[in-house]
Amino acid sequence: MGNCCDMFVQQKNTNLRLRLPAVAFVWEIAMIILFGVFIRYNEEADTHWVEFKKVHNITSDSENDFYFRYPSFQDVHVMIFVGFGFLMTFLKRYSFGAVGFNFLVAAFGIQWALLMQGWFHSLDYTDGKIKIGVENLINADFCVAGCLIAYGAVLGKVSPVQLLLMTLFGVTLFAVEEYIILNLIHAKDAGGSMVIHTFGGYYGLSVSWVLYRPNLDQSKRLQCSAYHSDVFAMVGTLFLWMFWPSFNSAITDHGDGQHRAAINTYLALASTVLTTFAMSSLFEKKGKLDMVHIQNSTLAGGVAVGTAAEFMLTPYGSLIVGFCCGILSTLGYIFITPFIERKLRIQDTCGIHNLHAMPGVIGGIVGAITAAAASKEVYGEEGLINTFDFVGPFKDRTPRIQGGYQAAGLCVAIAFGVGGGILVGMILKLPIWGDPADENCFNDEIYWEVPEDEESIPPVLEYNNHIMNKHQGMSASNFSVEQS
Amino acid sequence: MGNCCDMFVQQKNTNLRLRLPAVAFVWEIAMIILFGVFIRYNEEADTHWVEFKKVHNITSDSENDFYFRYPSFQDVHVMIFVGFGFLMTFLKRYSFGAVGFNFLVAAFGIQWALLMQGWFHSLDYTDGKIKIGVENLINADFCVAGCLIAYGAVLGKVSPVQLLLMTLFGVTLFAVEEYIILNLIHAKDAGGSMVIHTFGGYYGLSVSWVLYRPNLDQSKRLQCSAYHSDVFAMVGTLFLWMFWPSFNSAITDHGDGQHRAAINTYLALASTVLTTFAMSSLFEKKGKLDMVHIQNSTLAGGVAVGTAAEFMLTPYGSLIVGFCCGILSTLGYIFITPFIERKLRIQDTCGIHNLHAMPGVIGGIVGAITAAAASKEVYGEEGLINTFDFVGPFKDRTPRIQGGYQAAGLCVAIAFGVGGGILVGMILKLPIWGDPADENCFNDEIYWEVPEDEESIPPVLEYNNHIMNKHQGMSASNFSVEQS
Amino acid sequence: MGNCCDMFVQQKNTNLRLRLPAVAFVWEIAMIILFGVFIRYNEEADTHWVEFKKVHNITSDSENDFYFRYPSFQDVHVMIFVGFGFLMTFLKRYSFGAVGFNFLVAAFGIQWALLMQGWFHSLDYTDGKIKIGVENLINADFCVAGCLIAYGAVLGKVSPVQLLLMTLFGVTLFAVEEYIILNLIHAKDAGGSMVIHTFGGYYGLSVSWVLYRPNLDQSKRLQCSAYHSDVFAMVGTLFLWMFWPSFNSAITDHGDGQHRAAINTYLALASTVLTTFAMSSLFEKKGKLDMVHIQNSTLAGGVAVGTAAEFMLTPYGSLIVGFCCGILSTLGYIFITPFIERKLRIQDTCGIHNLHAMPGVIGGIVGAITAAAASKEVYGEEGLINTFDFVGPFKDRTPRIQGGYQAAGLCVAIAFGVGGGILVGMILKLPIWGDPADENCFNDEIYWEVPEDEESIPPVLEYNNHIMNKHQGMSASNFSVEQS
Repeated sequence: MGNCCDMFVQQKNTNLRLRLPAVAFVWEIAMIILFGVFIRYNEEADTHWVEFKKVHNITSDSENDFYFRYPSFQDVHVMIFVGFGFLMTFLKRYSFGAVGFNFLVAAFGIQWALLMQGWFHSLDYTDGKIKIGVENLINADFCVAGCLIAYGAVLGKVSPVQLLLMTLFGVTLFAVEEYIILNLIHAKDAGGSMVIHTFGGYYGLSVSWVLYRPNLDQSKRLQCSAYHSDVFAMVGTLFLWMFWPSFNSAITDHGDGQHRAAINTYLALASTVLTTFAMSSLFEKKGKLDMVHIQNSTLAGGVAVGTAAEFMLTPYGSLIVGFCCGILSTLGYIFITPFIERKLRIQDTCGIHNLHAMPGVIGGIVGAITAAAASKEVYGEEGLINTFDFVGPFKDRTPRIQGGYQAAGLCVAIAFGVGGGILVGMILKLPIWGDPADENCFNDEIYWEVPEDEESIPPVLEYNNHIMNKHQGMSASNFSVEQS
Repeated sequence: MGNCCDMFVQQKNTNLRLRLPAVAFVWEIAMIILFGVFIRYNEEADTHWVEFKKVHNITSDSENDFYFRYPSFQDVHVMIFVGFGFLMTFLKRYSFGAVGFNFLVAAFGIQWALLMQGWFHSLDYTDGKIKIGVENLINADFCVAGCLIAYGAVLGKVSPVQLLLMTLFGVTLFAVEEYIILNLIHAKDAGGSMVIHTFGGYYGLSVSWVLYRPNLDQSKRLQCSAYHSDVFAMVGTLFLWMFWPSFNSAITDHGDGQHRAAINTYLALASTVLTTFAMSSLFEKKGKLDMVHIQNSTLAGGVAVGTAAEFMLTPYGSLIVGFCCGILSTLGYIFITPFIERKLRIQDTCGIHNLHAMPGVIGGIVGAITAAAASKEVYGEEGLINTFDFVGPFKDRTPRIQGGYQAAGLCVAIAFGVGGGILVGMILKLPIWGDPADENCFNDEIYWEVPEDEESIPPVLEYNNHIMNKHQGMSASNFSVEQS
Repeated sequence: MGNCCDMFVQQKNTNLRLRLPAVAFVWEIAMIILFGVFIRYNEEADTHWVEFKKVHNITSDSENDFYFRYPSFQDVHVMIFVGFGFLMTFLKRYSFGAVGFNFLVAAFGIQWALLMQGWFHSLDYTDGKIKIGVENLINADFCVAGCLIAYGAVLGKVSPVQLLLMTLFGVTLFAVEEYIILNLIHAKDAGGSMVIHTFGGYYGLSVSWVLYRPNLDQSKRLQCSAYHSDVFAMVGTLFLWMFWPSFNSAITDHGDGQHRAAINTYLALASTVLTTFAMSSLFEKKGKLDMVHIQNSTLAGGVAVGTAAEFMLTPYGSLIVGFCCGILSTLGYIFITPFIERKLRIQDTCGIHNLHAMPGVIGGIVGAITAAAASKEVYGEEGLINTFDFVGPFKDRTPRIQGGYQAAGLCVAIAFGVGGGILVGMILKLPIWGDPADENCFNDEIYWEVPEDEESIPPVLEYNNHIMNKHQGMSASNFSVEQS
């Protein structure tokens, strides 16, 4: 598929001067038009709020949803842009791409998500408009999170145009699977273990599978970290870790729902840190810790507690979930990532399988079990109804049945991730999107003007393999000359 | 003006051992005395709150303004200290000065701002005291933002004493123009497009114009970024970008006002990112992205939506504002900054013209148009009055008249920026404040004890140009010796 | 004390492959069991909240403590993980250890703190369970802060196993002294000047005293900063500085209490910055600023205003406290730290004496004086009772008596810090915890897999001093060979 002539000419054109601006302008103009047609403020963000309050007997502005959700929203926002962005800066020469392209695709994705999710969830049928408020902003950030997870699998190997396409389709798929899981199946998924992490993880892995690069070892010298880039990545890790309680509680029920989700997530994450450190040390000959594990696996507990965070998981239940995920995720980095690269031909730059896909599936299962085990004794009569929204068409559901639907939701997420990823991967494989040659992967110099430091690594010129190899030797010798 | 003898002796004394401590101590003692005389807690921060609640029939502590504004306050606080501070770390050897002096002047500025703004806005005439609460803290941060914007224009070229003077006068000017614009003219400016960004931008540009250095190219080797310093700068960019919705909504009306301002800013910024990336790629021969644009122009939409954020700008209106600003700001970096340096002799280190001055003016114009176009149909009867505060002496204003006053406010901001900047620039030009010689600009070694890394760049000794030039050669050869 | 044979064999085994995992797993499993037995959600985080509201006539979810405290909680959380973690990254080759071990011990500490503090403060005697909510999470973070302060004194000189032990005992001691100070003595300590900073400071100093290393200068080449590591440390400094108002106000009374504590802290910190810059410049021959002071002493005002932050300290009182602490803390770095290292044999890597211990004591004294000076005229009848909780068994206390008890609390904190530190230090001195040899201190390569940069500093092999010294020469020459 577009690979046929790689042997002869590796003449990859990575100049995006026309392609990137064209895509960005056309899409942004489309956004403006669609927003103009469809999107308005909801009643809590509209100047008519003052009348709305009177009609609904609301005595205080503090009842505006803004005050219940805005602090969590800002935390989630930090996770999306600083958290995901800096987590991916670990590569020695791909920090610009990590944080910069993350910025680009997230900024596009949240706009498209407001539309896609709006059509499914916030459409006001009286006037055909989508009415948005702070909860929509959070959901848009959530939706984008799925795509940024997928970015982790292909980090350094795709062009920003490919990323924008991946986000366009990813957000679209997300909105559909979310609607099916949350509305049709009526599964609960507060922190998005299924909807966000499982979907995003398998989406990214499937795309990466289709885009498999057999000669990726040509850029091996760049597929590693440097001392400072590992510290930068810890900025991302920590902001994700610290604000994850806000992520999982951002759109849960006011009051006890948000409160409980925050506590559960706080505990699961604390537990994960200990088992991650333990496993990282245990599986290295000299007992040394590996930054890859500390940067990533410490977050797995937050993923896995996503679905059940709003349930009565109990504090020790949260610890147990975190305990297991720290172990499994670290083992994933040690054993599964090399395995799936060698055997399944899936190159997963950031190890999203271990941080998102697998913990997401665990989260879905934990959610199903916890839901099935719910009882009126534990939740209280009203509490049970509130927590699971056993109202309207779902008022006859029992916890046990709900557990089954939760499991069904997980399957939908996996199916959309795998199926969607393969389809989108095939689109991205078209040789027109400006992706880098194998020997130039993980190199910021392809898409960025990079300041000339001593460490600067010039991109390999791209004629054909023969010339290229000669050139690589030359540039390496130049390099040593410069340093001596 | 103090330049006459530069040819003969470049004997600039940058030792601040007496000057910096003297200024800092005297000013801080003055602050303590003035705070002692004037500043007290307001009724919501005073232990009499418990009685205040009874008198005013307030049933819940959640009605304390603290809970409406504190989360936004903290976000703004992060923007001031981490946002502005790290945004300026992009220079390869001026990160200490960027983040350190930003810290110093902001910490002084917020104290002086509490007094200056307090006299104008929060004076309790019954006892002659300024009563402060969380809103005053936010406003002090806002006021300081204006001065930090100005710092961007002179980054690397002034001493910390000059910066403190610039802040002292800048805060004073700010408080006066703010009083004229918001109170006398009664223009609205929630996010400070005019009051903060336009004023701060032109203030800094004017100061830089007066302080023009014709031989600045002598430190050209330092006026560029390094790979890591560009990543540090992205920390600043992202925290500014993420928390800008809090900035623009921090002091708007409780309820729908804050809610709407946050949404508008979120959207404008998202849109700006796409057009910034597009323009950055479009205007480079190979289509590569330039970190300068990504770090700065992506924020222009937040500036430009400042005034109108609390109006019914509509979501697509916000997108349009962001769309245009991403384009114009990036073009500014490509064409206008070189132009004003060459033709107008304004050296603008961070390009504040493109990030603050120009988008601020756009924001003022957008605000004027949006205000003039307001109607009871869109805002509702009460909503219109609430949003524009058409009460008291302003109860007869119509939206159209308000639009005119908004435009007048913009003119006041420009006038104060330019006029104040020229005056303050003349004071700063006195040769007693310890500014660095041309060849030592953008070098942390002048004012900081810098650890001896390999990259360390020793300051050029300062006798006269002849000796200096010799010395520069020597230090360069030393340098290569060390490395070989 | 285990030092006897150092001369002959320096055969320190720093391989933690069994020890670290064993400790982590055993402790985490213990946590799970103890949480299972003891810890449940409190009524505001439980699904029974819906019924609780009815019983207590609560009409709005906004009365849930979550909304009063969660934004502050998240700020505190950032201080613990990013603030403390990055503040310690200043060493040129110990950034992994700084931010990584900080992460590990904090994650363990908060779990243990929930138990220890829970038994003392949140035990529900009806069912023997600890009921937790957001305030417990904040208090757990606070408790851990004490241990992280202590980490600062021994940074780079201990193994992660020692740190875990230090945290286990530190949290235990903390919970006891906190109970004595806050409950038995009934001293007030909103921001923990005594309970957190004084205790933590002296705890760390005492541990470091016991663990004194006479030959630490063997790793002197690593006990310094690099340009980039100083900038990373500023990330920590600024997040601590910015969020300190949240720290000091996080668990104060709803309403005016939180509001006032935030204002006081904001002001004290602003004032500290100016005097820190002044002193740093004044005491260097060329008037240059020292990053060590800017990174640390600028925070001293936040420590010292901790106890009195919720009192009617007045805004200028806060400025005065900050003013003095900036001076004293900077003088501490210049004079006291070298003194206590030389004379008292206390090696204090981060200078916690100047940032926490001394300002903490000042804070305790300020608190005592402010409390003793409280009056009904200033506080109001009810305000005085509310602020000092003069209710129940303490309803006959006068402010003057309260002042005495505040001073008593301070003594308890010092006693627990010093005594506990010596005991724990003796345990840590056992030669079984995998601490590094003197020549390998401050070196990440001992406990971490470090990417091979140019700067990479291999650990010194550890046979005996003779061989070691030869080896050190070799590795140094290897080094230069690699670079030439």
